[in-house]
Amino acid sequence: MTVTAPAWTTAPAELYQEIQQFYAQQMHLLDDGRVAEWAGTFTPEGVFAANAQPAPAVGRDAITEAAAKATEAYAAAGVQRRHWLGMVAVTGGTGDTVTARCYALVIETPRGGRPEIKASTLCEDELVRAGGTWQVRDRRITRDDLI
Amino acid sequence: MTVTAPAWTTAPAELYQEIQQFYAQQMHLLDDGRVAEWAGTFTPEGVFAANAQPAPAVGRDAITEAAAKATEAYAAAGVQRRHWLGMVAVTGGTGDTVTARCYALVIETPRGGRPEIKASTLCEDELVRAGGTWQVRDRRITRDDLI
Amino acid sequence: MTVTAPAWTTAPAELYQEIQQFYAQQMHLLDDGRVAEWAGTFTPEGVFAANAQPAPAVGRDAITEAAAKATEAYAAAGVQRRHWLGMVAVTGGTGDTVTARCYALVIETPRGGRPEIKASTLCEDELVRAGGTWQVRDRRITRDDLI
Repeated sequence: MTVTAPAWTTAPAELYQEIQQFYAQQMHLLDDGRVAEWAGTFTPEGVFAANAQPAPAVGRDAITEAAAKATEAYAAAGVQRRHWLGMVAVTGGTGDTVTARCYALVIETPRGGRPEIKASTLCEDELVRAGGTWQVRDRRITRDDLI
Repeated sequence: MTVTAPAWTTAPAELYQEIQQFYAQQMHLLDDGRVAEWAGTFTPEGVFAANAQPAPAVGRDAITEAAAKATEAYAAAGVQRRHWLGMVAVTGGTGDTVTARCYALVIETPRGGRPEIKASTLCEDELVRAGGTWQVRDRRITRDDLI
Repeated sequence: MTVTAPAWTTAPAELYQEIQQFYAQQMHLLDDGRVAEWAGTFTPEGVFAANAQPAPAVGRDAITEAAAKATEAYAAAGVQRRHWLGMVAVTGGTGDTVTARCYALVIETPRGGRPEIKASTLCEDELVRAGGTWQVRDRRITRDDLI
């Protein structure tokens, strides 16, 4: 049984590490175009919501479909995307669920061109421990240009 | 009593974590416009010095005032700021005080516009342990365009 | 004797920290123009390969020479470089050698000018433990604009 604990001021080192590593590995999958594996980093009924989208994607199939469309469009355009997540704050949780808040940049480089920051965003996550890793149960992305 | 120890080559994992988390939480406060709480992450007589400013801000009142002015100007202009601190090196210290050196970017996004890197800087800190967290006793910001 | 272990899904906290700190300290050396010390963060026969270069630099002398040339050119042009490594994934290894994969940005600021992202890259490393720190045995840099 999981007991709800008060919000941490500072997460334990081991936990903070795990979240950092999870974010790195998760975004490598997306930027490498491994969209099904990327969707697998969400819970089966996971939610991906963004203020740039009219409605959230719910569940791995919907998340895969949305990611695949974007991935194909970028590949066709010859653009390499890189998602940088940083300034990670673990804002609460128990041992098996955490809430986290971080910044995310999308950096795009066209073949033969210069890198640009396409979007600066705030990322708010509910994460759950699943087996040996973490999964996203709920992600809310707020693009800074749309607020 | 605090005994001065030789500079670390590598900080203990627990300490390095804490500094990373402190930086994330501290900059979230500033970027959220919570300027009094931001000033509270400095010691009561804390110093904020920058090569872009004629004189350092000393003490929480002065730090609050400077941050409030900037925050109001950005809000009026419809610009969201995000401070990214990274490449953190803990360069010395004892268990209760540390010196740290990191890079800091200021990324600004106007409403309806594109994100831009407003400033690339070097951040040099003296941090002290205070209760369950860290505080900045002395921060020196060096903007790369002004050196 | 070092026994090869299966790839980690998640690196131990202590190790992950060490790699993060190594990257920060290593790139501070380069950005500060301390090129011989920078080259000393590679093994004596270390390899630095990049898709932007016709051939890899092999060994500390070659790495020093390449870094010194670039450093002098930037200094003469009045440009401050900052290398940001992030989104670090430790992808495998034993206790004494690891493979890591991260993103690297080069941010350049001309004196009196605006910061720009000069390059967005993928960095793939083989690292070995040497004394109290880590060294790069093999680094492969893939610039996103050249793929």
